[in-house]
Amino acid sequence: MRDAYHEELDSLTDKLVEMTRLVRSGISRATTALLDSDLQLAESVISRDEEVNALFNDIETSILELMARQQPVAVDLRMIITALRMGTDLERMGDLAVHVAKVARLRHPDSAIPPELRSTIVEMGQIAENLVTKAGSCVATRDVDSALELQHDDDAMDRLHRKLFRSILAKDWQHGVEPAIDITLIGRYYERYADHAVRVAQAVVYLVTGSRPS
Amino acid sequence: MRDAYHEELDSLTDKLVEMTRLVRSGISRATTALLDSDLQLAESVISRDEEVNALFNDIETSILELMARQQPVAVDLRMIITALRMGTDLERMGDLAVHVAKVARLRHPDSAIPPELRSTIVEMGQIAENLVTKAGSCVATRDVDSALELQHDDDAMDRLHRKLFRSILAKDWQHGVEPAIDITLIGRYYERYADHAVRVAQAVVYLVTGSRPS
Repeated sequence: MRDAYHEELDSLTDKLVEMTRLVRSGISRATTALLDSDLQLAESVISRDEEVNALFNDIETSILELMARQQPVAVDLRMIITALRMGTDLERMGDLAVHVAKVARLRHPDSAIPPELRSTIVEMGQIAENLVTKAGSCVATRDVDSALELQHDDDAMDRLHRKLFRSILAKDWQHGVEPAIDITLIGRYYERYADHAVRVAQAVVYLVTGSRPS
Repeated sequence: MRDAYHEELDSLTDKLVEMTRLVRSGISRATTALLDSDLQLAESVISRDEEVNALFNDIETSILELMARQQPVAVDLRMIITALRMGTDLERMGDLAVHVAKVARLRHPDSAIPPELRSTIVEMGQIAENLVTKAGSCVATRDVDSALELQHDDDAMDRLHRKLFRSILAKDWQHGVEPAIDITLIGRYYERYADHAVRVAQAVVYLVTGSRPS
């Protein structure tokens, strides 16, 4: 049987996994709000980010209490340090989903995404969801191999990000400056989201092995 | 006389202050590189970011050693947690200076900044430098009042950021899509840089008072 102390450490992991679930739902709904120009969905992403922030506060508070009471050492200490790092990244992913939703809200009832770029945004949304799902499963299982794999999945996001830029800069871009700015920012939000998901996975590698992935 | 343990804690502060100095130099040189279209200066920002990263690694390593050996409690524990948080923000500020420098490098020998926006970028650079200088001094002195003030200084950056957007979206914008994209990203880099500087100051408030600024 686990003692209370180790149960608290386990509950840190549970909370982090729950954070991945929430920020996955955030980016998923934000992508749909963007593509369907769905104001209500966009608003829900924005208001529900509070849950992500509250969960991170909760994690930080538990950590301070744990450290003050238990003076954890060695691997438990690493768990605590990495939980803080993961929490910071996940909280930021929630913010980035909110940024995407805000562009959807700003342009409603129009769509910020011109027809020819819709499929690219769909793909970016899917990769983002994929990455955070995998990151969540790495946090839960502490599987180093999957965590290392995640870095390659991120390459697909970078390719799509470059593709967006090429479309905006192409001679036949007909939508003018404002949509180009929206696309520039949206592209950056997805790219950053993916980057933070990779960092969560890297933290798992550090947690298990004690050294950072190159 | 301070014992070895407290000397190590003090040296954490010194390293964080040194990080603020390095990332200040980074954004200062990046802004100049951008305005003067100075390739060599841009390259120096990019290559010297390694120093920032190395310093953060150094801080993380010291913290893990400190925690494993000393099992710090109460305020020392808060120092360690906040040092990690500040280090993460400062490291990101270094990255953002690199992003600015990379735009300068990409457009060299041209300038990414149209003449009518130069003064806005000069101002954004100055505010960024100002914020990080103040943040560094808050870290060194643990002055809560100055740390709280920093949040208002950030408003000036947000105003300039909005001004950039208005210029790009104005009817008389004559530079087309590519410069608009550059300006969009550059504006975002400065705005994020300022945001991270504010977070460093907020961490000082937390360190001293144990509660977060609203």
